[in-house]
Amino acid sequence: MSAFDRLSLNTATTKNWTLRQAVEGAAAAGLPAVGLWRDRVAEAGLDKAAKMVRDNGLRVSSLCRGGFLTGRDDAALDENRRAIDEAATLGAPELVIVAGGMADRDLDGARRRLKDRLFELVPYAAERQVRMALEPLHPMYCADRAVISTLGQALALAAPHPSEAVGVVIDTFHVWWDPELALHIADAGAQGRISCYQICDWLVPMATDPLLSRGMMGDGVIDFASIGALVHAAGYRGDVEVEIFNEAVWAADGHSVIETMKQRYRELVLPAVTGTE
Amino acid sequence: MSAFDRLSLNTATTKNWTLRQAVEGAAAAGLPAVGLWRDRVAEAGLDKAAKMVRDNGLRVSSLCRGGFLTGRDDAALDENRRAIDEAATLGAPELVIVAGGMADRDLDGARRRLKDRLFELVPYAAERQVRMALEPLHPMYCADRAVISTLGQALALAAPHPSEAVGVVIDTFHVWWDPELALHIADAGAQGRISCYQICDWLVPMATDPLLSRGMMGDGVIDFASIGALVHAAGYRGDVEVEIFNEAVWAADGHSVIETMKQRYRELVLPAVTGTE
Repeated sequence: MSAFDRLSLNTATTKNWTLRQAVEGAAAAGLPAVGLWRDRVAEAGLDKAAKMVRDNGLRVSSLCRGGFLTGRDDAALDENRRAIDEAATLGAPELVIVAGGMADRDLDGARRRLKDRLFELVPYAAERQVRMALEPLHPMYCADRAVISTLGQALALAAPHPSEAVGVVIDTFHVWWDPELALHIADAGAQGRISCYQICDWLVPMATDPLLSRGMMGDGVIDFASIGALVHAAGYRGDVEVEIFNEAVWAADGHSVIETMKQRYRELVLPAVTGTE
Repeated sequence: MSAFDRLSLNTATTKNWTLRQAVEGAAAAGLPAVGLWRDRVAEAGLDKAAKMVRDNGLRVSSLCRGGFLTGRDDAALDENRRAIDEAATLGAPELVIVAGGMADRDLDGARRRLKDRLFELVPYAAERQVRMALEPLHPMYCADRAVISTLGQALALAAPHPSEAVGVVIDTFHVWWDPELALHIADAGAQGRISCYQICDWLVPMATDPLLSRGMMGDGVIDFASIGALVHAAGYRGDVEVEIFNEAVWAADGHSVIETMKQRYRELVLPAVTGTE
């Protein structure tokens, strides 16, 4: 058993790598899993990508992403069905769903349309053994990216659906501030709905582009021991996916990024998520 | 009765004006109230500032700000007592409290220290008829500015104290995204704890300095009709304070900013907050 047998490299962390570089880089570093983005998969070709991952002995912790289901028309439904099909082909058990932002000033309406469209997509995903993993994004993205802003809200949206069909993503960057985090992580675990634990740090000050303010674990203010302990206590034993959007990380050599990631994971994350603190 | 008999100019909106310019500008525009920042009051001198406001026939809707009560030592207590004294001298019924950020990675500890220190300060404020108005700030400020991130959390912190002594601020920019907003505004009203309704818009995309991403009502995505209706339904009949941090607004002529503010208020805010939609 390796210290890294639950550590997954999300391909966004090594943004300048091709899919092949990321898959081979992760395998060479002894990681068992990768989180894939659809654009990298498309570049490589879906079947080739699936084979590449298999041939390197890796599993796919999650596929990013479906979603953007808040618009006034149904155009996004077909795209989401395609994303579900891709997840099935890749053997990705979890399709990360980023809800989408507001079409206008009607936040309630956007949330209602999202809720309705989940009822249309969930059976399609469930038939293909793909779970729709609802990801609450930080409230600063509510307007333009995701009207799901808290874990509690994601769980409420998941509630009408079977836990095998709809889960939730816990991403430290998005949820660390939530005063009700402990409560909702416990709920998510009790319901068997934790699809994915994604990690990165919250930098202070924030990057000028708030999308790029995700940092390497240890470079910001997030207490990975506390949140990891909650996730462990909630019964989660799945992969821990490192997803960093950060200009400096992207400019660095991918292999050295993975080495730093492994070191920080072992030091800051591993004891908590394995209950060995 | 004027359409503007509840509209208050927060001096941060006309940042480049002296206190005298802001007070006289507000009075000349027919506004009944101003929200004051302590630095502007200090520049003018406390007693002079109080007289200036009185002589212009204005009331002080709130004083900004006390708080920053999360540090590891008690240094902030004296500064908060001074802020309370100033509010009393100015006849400001509400002292806005910005909680303060994290001293380190210990978010729970910061929140505990804040809670404890409120017990020390509230009796001092109550003796002087000043209400401590807890302001939840947007979660993106949790690390470095305010560990109170939701209205529900502010109400929980207020709960042990009498409603005359501790209230909450509802600032559209900070709370508009909250999926539990309607619930908590109703609670705040039922408890008689709405200290202040502050308004400005959420701009998309955000400003590169997230502190300066507050916009004039109508320039962003916030639905002032919906939130204003909740605030009205909750029984709030107090001042509506416009507080905008925005480079372009600051660069404009103060008088024209007030005119725009009046026009947007009348069009977008007034019908909802007066229940006349």
